[in-house]
Amino acid sequence: MHRQQRNRTTQLLDDAGVELALFSDIDSVRWLTGLNLSPPALILFERGNFTLLADEGFGEATIFGDQTGCAYIPIVGYTIQQPIDAPARLAEALRELAARVNGPSGRVGVEEKSLTLGMWQSLREAIPGSEPLSLEGWLLPLRAVKTEEELARIREGFRLTTIGHEAGRKAVRLGQREIDVWTEVQTAVEREAGKWMQMGNDCIVGHRPANMSAAPLDFEIIANDSFILDLSVVVDGYWTDSCATYYTDQPTAQQVEMHKFVEEALAYAVSLVRPGAVTKEVDSKVRAFMADGGYEVYPHHTGHGIGLTGHEAPRIVPYNQEQFQEGNVIMLEPGIYIPGETSVRLEDAFLVTSDGVEPLSHHDKSLP
Amino acid sequence: MHRQQRNRTTQLLDDAGVELALFSDIDSVRWLTGLNLSPPALILFERGNFTLLADEGFGEATIFGDQTGCAYIPIVGYTIQQPIDAPARLAEALRELAARVNGPSGRVGVEEKSLTLGMWQSLREAIPGSEPLSLEGWLLPLRAVKTEEELARIREGFRLTTIGHEAGRKAVRLGQREIDVWTEVQTAVEREAGKWMQMGNDCIVGHRPANMSAAPLDFEIIANDSFILDLSVVVDGYWTDSCATYYTDQPTAQQVEMHKFVEEALAYAVSLVRPGAVTKEVDSKVRAFMADGGYEVYPHHTGHGIGLTGHEAPRIVPYNQEQFQEGNVIMLEPGIYIPGETSVRLEDAFLVTSDGVEPLSHHDKSLP
Repeated sequence: MHRQQRNRTTQLLDDAGVELALFSDIDSVRWLTGLNLSPPALILFERGNFTLLADEGFGEATIFGDQTGCAYIPIVGYTIQQPIDAPARLAEALRELAARVNGPSGRVGVEEKSLTLGMWQSLREAIPGSEPLSLEGWLLPLRAVKTEEELARIREGFRLTTIGHEAGRKAVRLGQREIDVWTEVQTAVEREAGKWMQMGNDCIVGHRPANMSAAPLDFEIIANDSFILDLSVVVDGYWTDSCATYYTDQPTAQQVEMHKFVEEALAYAVSLVRPGAVTKEVDSKVRAFMADGGYEVYPHHTGHGIGLTGHEAPRIVPYNQEQFQEGNVIMLEPGIYIPGETSVRLEDAFLVTSDGVEPLSHHDKSLP
Repeated sequence: MHRQQRNRTTQLLDDAGVELALFSDIDSVRWLTGLNLSPPALILFERGNFTLLADEGFGEATIFGDQTGCAYIPIVGYTIQQPIDAPARLAEALRELAARVNGPSGRVGVEEKSLTLGMWQSLREAIPGSEPLSLEGWLLPLRAVKTEEELARIREGFRLTTIGHEAGRKAVRLGQREIDVWTEVQTAVEREAGKWMQMGNDCIVGHRPANMSAAPLDFEIIANDSFILDLSVVVDGYWTDSCATYYTDQPTAQQVEMHKFVEEALAYAVSLVRPGAVTKEVDSKVRAFMADGGYEVYPHHTGHGIGLTGHEAPRIVPYNQEQFQEGNVIMLEPGIYIPGETSVRLEDAFLVTSDGVEPLSHHDKSLP
């Protein structure tokens, strides 16, 4: 799995003259292997060769397929015969592995925001004279362009996301609480998947004072309420995202007007995205559209990329000068919020194609 | 909150002559504050004074009450005006804070398995000449003795755990799948709590080949099945644990025999625990009890402490020479496993008191 990711990384590091590097950010390790690993796990890169150090429990042969120069060193996990200490065992394996590296000492690429001092000390013990060279964030631009393997997981995630929204739309009824709606959504997704699923995000009644973004609590759905269900489902480490707004019964005239306007804003946002479009320009145009319609502009992002995290590059925000690229998977999510009264947000996912976008999310966002 | 924890830590560090320390293990930070924080978060200790550096979102005044010498430095979280980078902001705050420290340079206590190289570099920039002194694991023995504040959370967790088991017992029916049982348990707990809850552990039919420990999948409950439901509920960062075994209809004669024997083994284990008893001796006696009964001895721990993690000190395992202490919260969990056929495990929680134990878990573990 994820051979393309390793090849692109090798190219990047070769071009930069980096011969030895240690990837410790769990998302880097996941991206380089395609495995939904938990910390602690490391990848040692040595001139195009990748060695994974991680908890035992993967079929050694299956990890890197037949890609030469790649290896997996399993770390003993739980045992009743000695204290459980994954970081210590990982450090030990790293020391052994690093001791076999044929030079160069000197610069070692590291991700210093996740590499622990203990791991660095172990590496340095094995390769005296090593100095850290920051590779922090180097993989993010590569991660923003998805491969077919990644898209397959994301598409499966959106299939489940749609099932969650179907359950949510039905569960929004007078007298139900946010948590009641949530348990219906969660149950529908997990029963379909046949296993535990990591899920998020917002599940919130319109009459709540902070009705933009919050986890479900025991707020009850009242008459003329709106209900924001913003749902992410994580499949093999890959996130989806989505938002629909539901109503107790028939939405009020004001809610209909707001809902239709947000539908227009979302359609407008979609029309702006193509390779080469600048993220901050799309952001500012959609904000202007909201203001021109006479609505207060939402205080959050206009959208963002998704992948191994729920919010990542390319971010569609005022500060970002990045251009969209073919292969980006992005969310667009305009909304209108009247605190303590009602709110609406609609959000869809898109794959950026050579000349525009392909929809990835398929949940029903329509008025009842 | 958690003033006793800070006082005990100050005593420990004073006794060891440690004047400056940086706690980076998220469980250390949680234990020192009583806050269920997410990483990244740090505590800087300077001669009895504690400063918390963490994501904004806590009422500053409420964290340390009126305890002098304690401070909270909030770190800016999400904003659309600049890249989101909590570790960088935390490092910046740490540099500023460390620069105000009035000596000593030299030894700085660290938890090197969680402290990142980036944070260490920031600290070292602010206090040149600092050398790391490992405090890794120093707080674990303190954490093993619970305070009343911690027990209140744990007791609330067990109240919810009982509710989960009630739902689980009802849900174990012919034709239901493991995941169906799980969603009933999860829904019952979350509806009662009125919010999302972190939960675990095993939810598994007896006829599964590995019927000791596994997350729920789509294995269906068949005739004469047994069903292990091992449930943890996390309340404000504090874990519970528990296990019961349910049956499709009436258990078979073999299942009844196994179930009753495990009830006896659990009662025997409980009778052995008191302050001063040695954990490995309790472990070996319960294993001997199983073997004497003619059953294969379970390959897992006999039990373990719980608290900010699901498995912690004191561990009741063959290697551990620790003695039980008043204030420990421990699990005992004998089981019998016939792979692919049937299995039974029963698990209860206890507070170690001055002369024995007080039960903390109250779920029904009886035969139907």
